[in-house]
Amino acid sequence: MIIIKNGTIVTESESYHSDIMVENNKISCIGANLSDDNAEIIDASGMYVIPGAVDVHTHMDLQSGNSRSIDDFYTGTVAAVCGGTTSIVDHVAFGPPKCVLRHQIDEYHKLANGKAVIDYGFHGVIQHVNDGVLSDMESLAKEGISSFKIYMTYDFKLDDGSILKVLQKAKELGIIIAVHAENNDVINDLREKYVSNGCVETIYHAKSRPDHCEAEAISRVLHLAALAGDAPIYIVHTSTEKGLDEIRKARAQGQKNIFSETCTQYLTMTEEKYFEPNNNGLKYVMSPPLRKKKDIEALWKGIQDGAINVIATDHCSFNLKGDKQKGADDFTKCPNGAPGVAERVVVIFSEGVMKKKISINLFVKLLCTNPAKIYGLYPKKGSLIPGADADITIINPNPEYTITRNMLHGAVDYTCFEGMKLKGEIDTVIQNGKVAYKNNKFFGKKGNGEFIKRKIMEQ
Amino acid sequence: MIIIKNGTIVTESESYHSDIMVENNKISCIGANLSDDNAEIIDASGMYVIPGAVDVHTHMDLQSGNSRSIDDFYTGTVAAVCGGTTSIVDHVAFGPPKCVLRHQIDEYHKLANGKAVIDYGFHGVIQHVNDGVLSDMESLAKEGISSFKIYMTYDFKLDDGSILKVLQKAKELGIIIAVHAENNDVINDLREKYVSNGCVETIYHAKSRPDHCEAEAISRVLHLAALAGDAPIYIVHTSTEKGLDEIRKARAQGQKNIFSETCTQYLTMTEEKYFEPNNNGLKYVMSPPLRKKKDIEALWKGIQDGAINVIATDHCSFNLKGDKQKGADDFTKCPNGAPGVAERVVVIFSEGVMKKKISINLFVKLLCTNPAKIYGLYPKKGSLIPGADADITIINPNPEYTITRNMLHGAVDYTCFEGMKLKGEIDTVIQNGKVAYKNNKFFGKKGNGEFIKRKIMEQ
Amino acid sequence: MIIIKNGTIVTESESYHSDIMVENNKISCIGANLSDDNAEIIDASGMYVIPGAVDVHTHMDLQSGNSRSIDDFYTGTVAAVCGGTTSIVDHVAFGPPKCVLRHQIDEYHKLANGKAVIDYGFHGVIQHVNDGVLSDMESLAKEGISSFKIYMTYDFKLDDGSILKVLQKAKELGIIIAVHAENNDVINDLREKYVSNGCVETIYHAKSRPDHCEAEAISRVLHLAALAGDAPIYIVHTSTEKGLDEIRKARAQGQKNIFSETCTQYLTMTEEKYFEPNNNGLKYVMSPPLRKKKDIEALWKGIQDGAINVIATDHCSFNLKGDKQKGADDFTKCPNGAPGVAERVVVIFSEGVMKKKISINLFVKLLCTNPAKIYGLYPKKGSLIPGADADITIINPNPEYTITRNMLHGAVDYTCFEGMKLKGEIDTVIQNGKVAYKNNKFFGKKGNGEFIKRKIMEQ
Amino acid sequence: MIIIKNGTIVTESESYHSDIMVENNKISCIGANLSDDNAEIIDASGMYVIPGAVDVHTHMDLQSGNSRSIDDFYTGTVAAVCGGTTSIVDHVAFGPPKCVLRHQIDEYHKLANGKAVIDYGFHGVIQHVNDGVLSDMESLAKEGISSFKIYMTYDFKLDDGSILKVLQKAKELGIIIAVHAENNDVINDLREKYVSNGCVETIYHAKSRPDHCEAEAISRVLHLAALAGDAPIYIVHTSTEKGLDEIRKARAQGQKNIFSETCTQYLTMTEEKYFEPNNNGLKYVMSPPLRKKKDIEALWKGIQDGAINVIATDHCSFNLKGDKQKGADDFTKCPNGAPGVAERVVVIFSEGVMKKKISINLFVKLLCTNPAKIYGLYPKKGSLIPGADADITIINPNPEYTITRNMLHGAVDYTCFEGMKLKGEIDTVIQNGKVAYKNNKFFGKKGNGEFIKRKIMEQ
Repeated sequence: MIIIKNGTIVTESESYHSDIMVENNKISCIGANLSDDNAEIIDASGMYVIPGAVDVHTHMDLQSGNSRSIDDFYTGTVAAVCGGTTSIVDHVAFGPPKCVLRHQIDEYHKLANGKAVIDYGFHGVIQHVNDGVLSDMESLAKEGISSFKIYMTYDFKLDDGSILKVLQKAKELGIIIAVHAENNDVINDLREKYVSNGCVETIYHAKSRPDHCEAEAISRVLHLAALAGDAPIYIVHTSTEKGLDEIRKARAQGQKNIFSETCTQYLTMTEEKYFEPNNNGLKYVMSPPLRKKKDIEALWKGIQDGAINVIATDHCSFNLKGDKQKGADDFTKCPNGAPGVAERVVVIFSEGVMKKKISINLFVKLLCTNPAKIYGLYPKKGSLIPGADADITIINPNPEYTITRNMLHGAVDYTCFEGMKLKGEIDTVIQNGKVAYKNNKFFGKKGNGEFIKRKIMEQ
Repeated sequence: MIIIKNGTIVTESESYHSDIMVENNKISCIGANLSDDNAEIIDASGMYVIPGAVDVHTHMDLQSGNSRSIDDFYTGTVAAVCGGTTSIVDHVAFGPPKCVLRHQIDEYHKLANGKAVIDYGFHGVIQHVNDGVLSDMESLAKEGISSFKIYMTYDFKLDDGSILKVLQKAKELGIIIAVHAENNDVINDLREKYVSNGCVETIYHAKSRPDHCEAEAISRVLHLAALAGDAPIYIVHTSTEKGLDEIRKARAQGQKNIFSETCTQYLTMTEEKYFEPNNNGLKYVMSPPLRKKKDIEALWKGIQDGAINVIATDHCSFNLKGDKQKGADDFTKCPNGAPGVAERVVVIFSEGVMKKKISINLFVKLLCTNPAKIYGLYPKKGSLIPGADADITIINPNPEYTITRNMLHGAVDYTCFEGMKLKGEIDTVIQNGKVAYKNNKFFGKKGNGEFIKRKIMEQ
Repeated sequence: MIIIKNGTIVTESESYHSDIMVENNKISCIGANLSDDNAEIIDASGMYVIPGAVDVHTHMDLQSGNSRSIDDFYTGTVAAVCGGTTSIVDHVAFGPPKCVLRHQIDEYHKLANGKAVIDYGFHGVIQHVNDGVLSDMESLAKEGISSFKIYMTYDFKLDDGSILKVLQKAKELGIIIAVHAENNDVINDLREKYVSNGCVETIYHAKSRPDHCEAEAISRVLHLAALAGDAPIYIVHTSTEKGLDEIRKARAQGQKNIFSETCTQYLTMTEEKYFEPNNNGLKYVMSPPLRKKKDIEALWKGIQDGAINVIATDHCSFNLKGDKQKGADDFTKCPNGAPGVAERVVVIFSEGVMKKKISINLFVKLLCTNPAKIYGLYPKKGSLIPGADADITIINPNPEYTITRNMLHGAVDYTCFEGMKLKGEIDTVIQNGKVAYKNNKFFGKKGNGEFIKRKIMEQ
Repeated sequence: MIIIKNGTIVTESESYHSDIMVENNKISCIGANLSDDNAEIIDASGMYVIPGAVDVHTHMDLQSGNSRSIDDFYTGTVAAVCGGTTSIVDHVAFGPPKCVLRHQIDEYHKLANGKAVIDYGFHGVIQHVNDGVLSDMESLAKEGISSFKIYMTYDFKLDDGSILKVLQKAKELGIIIAVHAENNDVINDLREKYVSNGCVETIYHAKSRPDHCEAEAISRVLHLAALAGDAPIYIVHTSTEKGLDEIRKARAQGQKNIFSETCTQYLTMTEEKYFEPNNNGLKYVMSPPLRKKKDIEALWKGIQDGAINVIATDHCSFNLKGDKQKGADDFTKCPNGAPGVAERVVVIFSEGVMKKKISINLFVKLLCTNPAKIYGLYPKKGSLIPGADADITIINPNPEYTITRNMLHGAVDYTCFEGMKLKGEIDTVIQNGKVAYKNNKFFGKKGNGEFIKRKIMEQ
């Protein structure tokens, strides 16, 4: 039993001083002056007590071409929990061509089981569409895989007809489809053009994926979702003003069940990063790429007015040495992806809350409650109410420091946010009723994390 | 001590099953399976447990021309609490010409003290502007009168220069100005025209206050608020699509600190009501008047997308017999105003939540939490958190019935909603830690209500 | 030499009384009281004298599956000129798979030469993209084929990569690409679904091509045009509110060189037509299909505020007997297309000008001047200025009558507008300096029409 | 008789090479290769031949407080015609309090008659509203005074009720009301505040009339026009983005008969000008004041998309020495107004057409045709069609030079545009069939200008 005393409890709509009691892995009670002789007392004076953060966009142990992401479910979830995140929903990797939908889910159960230190769920990934896949969607949903990811680019991109079928099925089942929205033909055309002209520097990664490329795909998939009866759809890593405009347009036309995500990196860094000397720009090679200042401003505005629902990470970590540096002479050779699961909570707290771009309540909504609600983890995750899982993050808003790789607990050899000045740090993390992180130390246990059978989203 | 067991606790963002304990007039604890031998147990199985509703727009004991509203602070607050509302912020009436700002506050303390059965605050009313008035704003704010009302029509309307001065002062003090926004000249011009042409039927009340009349005044006062540095401003009883468009426009331009209210009647009835036979249309003579179907639709849309922040009542009750019927031969003779404090919670619950226009959480936000936050009653009022005042309303969503005057507990001889079919009723109301209403009976006590020293709004 | 006296000369911006003189196939002079002893005098008192109308969207002599359109370049242009249209730009049909771009242009020169009674141009049609096709675009442009059509559905649809290449080339050459924008996968998915469920009635033609299907494709191709540096693009037969919204969106984002067309039928008839008894609904089977009332309203609004630039016909005539009736038991068997070249001018004059939806100047802009300017026929066509080709249509606004097939001069056995009450008729048409139509009689001559070497559009 | 040969004739929609013949003060004929032995030939090779420009916003011979504007109807119209402007509609000055509406019209007939060198009309000015004034509106309209000006600020501002009555009358008569839209109370409040705090430098002229001050008044008067049944209304000198937003808003809501004007100065200079040393900033003291860069951008965008209909001057010239310098120690002492009638055509030609912000056709529309159409001078003025008055301006687009006071022909001792580099100059001006300006010399004749009986606007 734990009692957290004297903190400011924060939900997406309220902030108040109260004590909170944890018993048997659950939050049992919230009240003034709680006490119990057997309780471990955590003093949260001057601190924010928030629901353990939820990251619904990670890629642990991912095989991508010749590279395998450096974080497996152990190191990745250690990084997460030490960064204040107590649950993830991971995107399983592509499987062999023509494999059944269940194939990769089975693989990922094996990869995560016994390793993860926090609870985890999986998004299924749809590589092709046929009756078996559509039927697997239903059976997997019943097993707690209540969302599926589709790609509009990369090797296993779906054509519009397949996307429509997936969305129709999702609508029927009441589950949600996450979409990586970029126009594949555009990327191919531009990459070919750049490479054949010797434009192989890292910045061409960004130039080959311009904002219209994202916006077009978002528009397309939203129209398809509308045609499927306003099927629930979730746009991952929205990175541009024009992309966000498409989401606003569809909602303004009355389309329901549209959700949107952006990620820490798109809110804090511009494509100028690709010019870092010594090929350090490769650290930021991810898709979509870093964007322009106007896009950052549009995304923060979207966050403030509710157009964006979730801030996630798209955590997909490759070492700079060895892996990312494969792109030194040709950006197309660099594995796509960057780490972020360790940094999200403090970076957004510092850049968003401390710089008064967002309230502490909206912070909780974007990083904890909304992702949990949208993906069926709520109310066990993402909330501080009696009966919820005892996943709690305590943030101390006072410390000022410069973030550096060495402070982080994952396996990867760099952080995109190296050198950024932050205000506010993770003080304590309680996961599943026990202290998993405190005094900059990890106290969790390998294998403690359990698979989360997720519910169908709340519509 | 009271424990409410087995209900669904509802806040503006969450709904969850939990028990809730009341001690010493406060909510002390929320948790699973609470128990105490000394506690009175209220079983809320199958019911919603919400914060006692807050009505920030009432006119009790109001002198208006020759008529005095029929509800004083006793009957009016009995009507309120039996309808699920446990606090009001009342608009004091106009005082004698040139009276000091404090004059009417003193009057209303006398009128409410010893009579009100629930807690109450006052909005000051600014009839004219000079140094004394501006200075009184500051001293009154310190006494808990943290908002003031201004009128752009009626005898004590303010001109634009005076409004600007009030808004500048409000910005300086961090308090909020509530505005009745209608263009006075337009109304006068149209009323003269209609009356001089013999158009005196009740419908001409509506025709003499068209939507542009409201929209113009909203636009004007929002521009003035912008000129005062985005002074906090609250548009009362927004009733038209065009009026709401002005609010959206200003926000889209980046103007901050704009709040908007609509009322039960504008969401549920059209101007067709003015044609009710036997002069029954006079029941609905209020300003602004009932509007058109397109306006109702626009207001609900504004509620759904967050453009409207509060649903209040503008409760101002005159008996149909004797009072409202003064307008039988000339609509301009009818005292303006209609009752609503008793009906708001059930009507909006039924029309909004049960008809799936809004979620139960948004319902709580609009009727309880937002009004409390905007007007400085929060977190004592409008929330269910430990430490908050024990003002709790329990709603049973199941009963279906037809509402009629006889069910209500106020003094007035009619309800605008007579005959409306409703689903959901007030089961129990706890006010200040005690049951004030249950089994259709009032258990409160005259004079139990206390003046609420309101805080400055949360900006 | 002809002098038209006493009429009201109408341009896209002015209406004035003046005489107009024609010499040597050209307009030579506009002035008051012109006279010449050798001149044929046409009295246009009380009439509008407008530039001969230009139809930039026709399909003469088109092979489509098993059907060939009934109007060849003779009957089709007779229909046109008797209907007030004095030039067309025809879309050449698809050629054999893999044929070179020039192949169909050569074919259509043969089909039109010696037959057409009015001047004509061709839009090239791009069926596939390779270096030869891109290079032919340039050489054909120099020969006066300064626009090309691409399809996003049908057998020879282009994928996004090919579209992008075409648009990049068009930008380089300064020519314009006309696009048939519908999402092919959506249509296929819905058609299969309907047909496999036995839904084969004519209305399912419309249901299988919903508004989102058009809007998606418009959004996509506009994004691609933006990626090609705001390549000039022309959306043919815009038929829906949502489609038009996409055009507005792109322009609001600052995208240049977007042009849009709608057709007579989308402004005047709804999908209710598909329910006409005796399979008469097949008359209206065209793609996109007839739409809903709200779409008609949106299109007229788009015309009034300038969002739509051109009204054309998509004239593609199949006889109802024999051809269209192939779809009697299955809408997918009905050849797509309907006649319209004969009816456009009078129907839009009556529905638009006479019903005060548009001014007579806007009428001239939409049917004459804009299509000529956009497609490089201006100022020879589409204008009434000295030096322009003497193609002049005189409209008598007074006659009221009911339109019927027998009044028209083409080959096809029906008109979509049968029974519509009209006000205003074509009085006289001068083509190439000679009277080609008067007193309901055709006076032109087979083979008089010449190929128009079109200029690059005015950007 | 004059024949202008070889020029490019420009209308609002077309540009073409043709000759144009003038006989008996009228344009008689437009055609290729015109000739007549008696004709004076003007060679316009390489030049634009446009309708004589129309300036519908001038203040000649204006008494304003202690100052009288330096240009009377002789010097002012000499300045105009040498600048390419061949007609003006002048705003009569305020008359004595309570004077009848006709009073100032009579005065201005006396001031202009025998002096003006170009044709002129008058806008009546409404200082107060009563039955006599409303009745005079009708009789004056019949005499060719088909528009009236109202002010929302200054001594003779109208209150909203009076404005509504004027608009209702205008709607009834089919005439148009021009409005100076600024919120008077706001200006007074801010001026008092600044002056009492010693903020008397010229820049405080701008600070005391912020953008919201203009936008509020525009919103208000547009709502009033809507209430008057979409009465025709013309917003003079729109100077801000926010003001223009209000015009867009009203039109988007479907309001008809809204016209808007901006002036040369608001398109070319920012409030930085007020900081010019040696009190030279006083040159730019006019109301509304010069604005910010974002406003200039918004105005040009409004011009490009049609939101702004007219570019005029608000010509009101006071000498810098003696007059404007009264404001040296207190901006409120500076007479409001600045010259511009001489500079408009060349400045907008250079900044707009030569810098490719607008086409030459749009240039003609904004400076010639639209003002003539809106204010009832068309088609006699503002067009190049047979029968129109022979007012023609010929522009040579090639010369590059720096504009300076000495080049201009009016009485005032400075130009706001001193030192601006221009491209394009007035070559020749024909007024009333005779050359009035050529080779930088004035050839007109005092008193040649005639009063224009204007028609009711074309609705």
